[in-house]
Amino acid sequence: MASSKSKRTTVPVAVVGASGYSGAELARLLCLHPQAKLTCVTSRQHAGRALSEIFPRLRGVGPEDLFFTEPDVDAIAASGAQAVFLALPHGVAAEFAGPLVEKGLRVVDLSADFRLESPSIYEEFYGSPHPAPDLLAESVYGLPEIRAGEIRKARLVASPGCYPTSILLPLIPVLREGLIARSGIVANSISGVSGAGKRADTALLFAECNESLRPYGVPKHRHLSEIEQELSAVSGQKITISFTPHLAPVTAGLCTTISALLDNGSAEERIGKAYAEAYGKAPFVRLLGPGGCPDTKHVIGTNFIDIGWCIDERTGRCVLMSAEDNLGKGAAGQALQSFNLMFGLEETAGLKII
Amino acid sequence: MASSKSKRTTVPVAVVGASGYSGAELARLLCLHPQAKLTCVTSRQHAGRALSEIFPRLRGVGPEDLFFTEPDVDAIAASGAQAVFLALPHGVAAEFAGPLVEKGLRVVDLSADFRLESPSIYEEFYGSPHPAPDLLAESVYGLPEIRAGEIRKARLVASPGCYPTSILLPLIPVLREGLIARSGIVANSISGVSGAGKRADTALLFAECNESLRPYGVPKHRHLSEIEQELSAVSGQKITISFTPHLAPVTAGLCTTISALLDNGSAEERIGKAYAEAYGKAPFVRLLGPGGCPDTKHVIGTNFIDIGWCIDERTGRCVLMSAEDNLGKGAAGQALQSFNLMFGLEETAGLKII
Amino acid sequence: MASSKSKRTTVPVAVVGASGYSGAELARLLCLHPQAKLTCVTSRQHAGRALSEIFPRLRGVGPEDLFFTEPDVDAIAASGAQAVFLALPHGVAAEFAGPLVEKGLRVVDLSADFRLESPSIYEEFYGSPHPAPDLLAESVYGLPEIRAGEIRKARLVASPGCYPTSILLPLIPVLREGLIARSGIVANSISGVSGAGKRADTALLFAECNESLRPYGVPKHRHLSEIEQELSAVSGQKITISFTPHLAPVTAGLCTTISALLDNGSAEERIGKAYAEAYGKAPFVRLLGPGGCPDTKHVIGTNFIDIGWCIDERTGRCVLMSAEDNLGKGAAGQALQSFNLMFGLEETAGLKII
Amino acid sequence: MASSKSKRTTVPVAVVGASGYSGAELARLLCLHPQAKLTCVTSRQHAGRALSEIFPRLRGVGPEDLFFTEPDVDAIAASGAQAVFLALPHGVAAEFAGPLVEKGLRVVDLSADFRLESPSIYEEFYGSPHPAPDLLAESVYGLPEIRAGEIRKARLVASPGCYPTSILLPLIPVLREGLIARSGIVANSISGVSGAGKRADTALLFAECNESLRPYGVPKHRHLSEIEQELSAVSGQKITISFTPHLAPVTAGLCTTISALLDNGSAEERIGKAYAEAYGKAPFVRLLGPGGCPDTKHVIGTNFIDIGWCIDERTGRCVLMSAEDNLGKGAAGQALQSFNLMFGLEETAGLKII
Repeated sequence: MASSKSKRTTVPVAVVGASGYSGAELARLLCLHPQAKLTCVTSRQHAGRALSEIFPRLRGVGPEDLFFTEPDVDAIAASGAQAVFLALPHGVAAEFAGPLVEKGLRVVDLSADFRLESPSIYEEFYGSPHPAPDLLAESVYGLPEIRAGEIRKARLVASPGCYPTSILLPLIPVLREGLIARSGIVANSISGVSGAGKRADTALLFAECNESLRPYGVPKHRHLSEIEQELSAVSGQKITISFTPHLAPVTAGLCTTISALLDNGSAEERIGKAYAEAYGKAPFVRLLGPGGCPDTKHVIGTNFIDIGWCIDERTGRCVLMSAEDNLGKGAAGQALQSFNLMFGLEETAGLKII
Repeated sequence: MASSKSKRTTVPVAVVGASGYSGAELARLLCLHPQAKLTCVTSRQHAGRALSEIFPRLRGVGPEDLFFTEPDVDAIAASGAQAVFLALPHGVAAEFAGPLVEKGLRVVDLSADFRLESPSIYEEFYGSPHPAPDLLAESVYGLPEIRAGEIRKARLVASPGCYPTSILLPLIPVLREGLIARSGIVANSISGVSGAGKRADTALLFAECNESLRPYGVPKHRHLSEIEQELSAVSGQKITISFTPHLAPVTAGLCTTISALLDNGSAEERIGKAYAEAYGKAPFVRLLGPGGCPDTKHVIGTNFIDIGWCIDERTGRCVLMSAEDNLGKGAAGQALQSFNLMFGLEETAGLKII
Repeated sequence: MASSKSKRTTVPVAVVGASGYSGAELARLLCLHPQAKLTCVTSRQHAGRALSEIFPRLRGVGPEDLFFTEPDVDAIAASGAQAVFLALPHGVAAEFAGPLVEKGLRVVDLSADFRLESPSIYEEFYGSPHPAPDLLAESVYGLPEIRAGEIRKARLVASPGCYPTSILLPLIPVLREGLIARSGIVANSISGVSGAGKRADTALLFAECNESLRPYGVPKHRHLSEIEQELSAVSGQKITISFTPHLAPVTAGLCTTISALLDNGSAEERIGKAYAEAYGKAPFVRLLGPGGCPDTKHVIGTNFIDIGWCIDERTGRCVLMSAEDNLGKGAAGQALQSFNLMFGLEETAGLKII
Repeated sequence: MASSKSKRTTVPVAVVGASGYSGAELARLLCLHPQAKLTCVTSRQHAGRALSEIFPRLRGVGPEDLFFTEPDVDAIAASGAQAVFLALPHGVAAEFAGPLVEKGLRVVDLSADFRLESPSIYEEFYGSPHPAPDLLAESVYGLPEIRAGEIRKARLVASPGCYPTSILLPLIPVLREGLIARSGIVANSISGVSGAGKRADTALLFAECNESLRPYGVPKHRHLSEIEQELSAVSGQKITISFTPHLAPVTAGLCTTISALLDNGSAEERIGKAYAEAYGKAPFVRLLGPGGCPDTKHVIGTNFIDIGWCIDERTGRCVLMSAEDNLGKGAAGQALQSFNLMFGLEETAGLKII
């Protein structure tokens, strides 16, 4: 009886690189998770200081006696952790993933290190050879709505970030069903500033980001590599898309709007049907119906992604729209969703937060 | 000697419907304009109250003895105004434009009433017959970078709003030169909340707009009618585009990102050349060069529009980006720019504000 | 064994006037509460519409089959509700409180109607005679940290709002211990805009509140009446304080800074001791220690109030500082905390959210 | 004829340390000033780069051929500058002030280096001996509303910052007239984030400051030293005040609320009269009258300070309120106002901007 068993389980977990925004959100969600127990949090910067000192929000709810330690594979394993979340920069995560997996821990990596299947595409987009190509063959792209079966069995899950999640979930069903053309897809995203990380960079100062709307990183954002990989996988041919990210003055939230040419006069109901089939049982995808426009304010702090769509008969194109919390479904929440699957817990355990 | 003469002129002006955000910005700019003098401001809501009471920002700079009056054509003319700015809702503006023009005043209308050439397209997009079709033949679409000559002679200028300006100025040069395909153009815009007007609508409350990113008005925004009219005019054939507006938590500012398929392998330098030819002498268009990303925070409070562009070789498309103040170049500033042309003043008079 | 019993209980509850911000937060918290079940939500404005349509955040978590109804005492009772939260304007709440209490329901009123002991002070501050003076004798001022015993037994709890809570909790311990002078107390508060309610008022528009800092309501805010009542109660003599509220561009959050003259050279440790004695076991008061400055960003979305303090030896005064979520500990969270006490649940049930 | 002469003058000016927010605002205002000409801008960080590259807002208005240089006294003098604005950190400004004054340039220092009369109080508050005590005797505290005569003749003006300006201007008239008690004055200020400077500090990131309200720097902010010095000067005895600064999520703007005990039952009209006498001819002080509440949104981008006041008869205290732009009247605007006085220009030259 998996379900009754799963209710009794408590999984000891570690978070490596817990000082940034994804790390902080992971810590928050794990403190609230009824079947996870934080045994280890690491941060070079904060080593020796209490978790609740660095994240004052956790005081009174989180563990009072947990202190940041230096990241060290042996110490992480010695803490008893069975699961490890890596909230590290790309390139650094790979240094920890292999040794941890070898020690028998199961790893959810929030970096981009294990999201690509091809080491050469990694090198093309990230500018250096892949640090651990052997593990790539094994790692699973952690989009639970698409690859739940593989995630359940994985030792290493590469959990997608905010832009890929917001683009892939609306596109995959309509592309898989052949409802849109495979070329000419244009995606525009608007992200909250926390997506840029907790870095001492003057470009991210309040006075630089407030009252500012701006595109950036044109035309070849790194995450295009994984987006196109996953789109190509479901459509059976190489897909290339146009993508422009923007920064807007919100702390959290990510809003994506996609324009695609309809194929064979696909109607709104066919799109709606494709979504219903794909996500009817997905607990964190909320379908807004035709004409429904998502709003990030309804999803921040949650693991939900809201999806709306409409057809523009004048141009023969459709508009697909999504909203998510870049730190929730776009980072920490999604990583926990994979964790739940990996450890046989309810997929929604600890994540039905609004 | 036009220029020495123009420096001596002071034009008496009226603002009709001055209680909203465009009206307030017009009042601000006119108080700072060295060759304009406010003789009349009207507002049903504020009639009888001092201009500086309603707009506290103007205290100490604006006229102390100017009071709002009820909108009345005879009274406006009797104030001595030679120019009238209409900052009224569409449909209402048309009631004033004709009588004022007949009395010999020159009118800059900030509403959508006189922007379309075709009464039937007006009816298609605005849902009612055009209230003054005769005047349509005469009115000039007031984009000074494109129609300066006509504007100079016009009795009635239909000054474009924020979305059309932000889309037309980047698109016209490359479309005119045949550098992009005429179909498959996708425009996404992000607007500040003041663009929705000063209306007592709970959807516009601070607590509803803050920490919120959202598309709206899909798929057939009213302003598409004028955008496509002007694009068709320069390209010699019917152009239809996809357009999705978004709302973000800034007071002012509008950021537009356009994706278009390159034609015949147009390179970045050809696009740059087209912009340089079109706007090299345009005092309010700032070209950021290839790869340059505009940022609304550099244009708010000004009449500038900043334009950047880049080519995405992977998809064979280009990205055109613009930033403007939705109340400046997207409304009041642009109206004043036309006013300057109409009255033989320097195009930049009163507008070199940063 | 109260605790094991309390874990099995589920209390059916109604929220009357659930369309504003406090109502929305109550609905959110009740959907997450493990021992409460929403049986009825009322709103004249939204009657007939689904809860999750009006509050899209609740979709996927809240009840799918709950619809707003017109507020009606019989219908509320017929829903099976044992507890009723009144999220109504002052004056209106009193119309419902009496009939509901008479029917045997227990009521937590979030309005100001039952917070004052004296009908004449109500009339002085609210401008009309008290609508139900008999109930005043019975109602309990619902500050759980101060009056838990009374709240447990109450049929009608008058739950304090954001300003009183943020001022009373820091002041009561030091005033009760005689550590500060009883006159010359100055409180300044900065509130998020949601504190002004969800009203279609142009003064609350995004474009009016963003980039704006402003005092308002000087010098005699209505909530002074209850603040001074409670301060007088603990100090044994009439206390009058100076209070200036301010509005700042945040959605939620309330920050209060109090300056008071130290009595008899009270030292920081005496203040710290008074707080520790008062709140050492209070699950939602987090003491930051001497010199600790609270920050609303650590408490928004929670039921915590963070309190810091310091002594200014140069002036012989102390500074007491608090931060809370105006909709959490300042409204809905606090109301639920009283509810937990009234129904014998754990005080923290459903409220250990961060 | 001073006025006709002043209209012809153009003063060459330098800005030293122009890379921060005050420097950027100085550059903006100087580009708009009709009688100032930027000849030199220095910045170690940006040396060699164009002014308009670092401040994109200035493109199209500012000089196209001005490049940042390394700060060097000889080079500054060689640029022909007659006036120099120092926008440097305290301690560093003093290194430049002396040599520049010796070379015959007139200096407006925006740092705290020359604001105090007493080197020992400097050391008490700034933690190191004063770097140039001799110049202290000569420097003038640059509050034009109070010390215009001295400023006109000064070689070195120490221009006050945002907190002192916002507190001194409301307090000085009522304190000078003996309308309030000299003890028990409590000032609370709320500042925009730009006031903390353009520093790569994670505490100033957008995601840390947005949705955050917080006091800081309690209880002995450095600027208390100059505030108390100036208050003591006008009241003829040592004044000590309580002051708590707060940070709120606005880019610019500073709002101060002061509570003081009324002396001898001072009435609102006596306070109003004191303000009218003090500031009736001050072009940048706008008096809002009794009960008038200032709002930073009406002053940002300007050199105005708005002042309101009211009496609280219940407590026998008065509330004095001010709003200014922390970078305008609280920094760059005020420095330019002193510059205008020093060079015999109209006090308002280049500053009647709204």
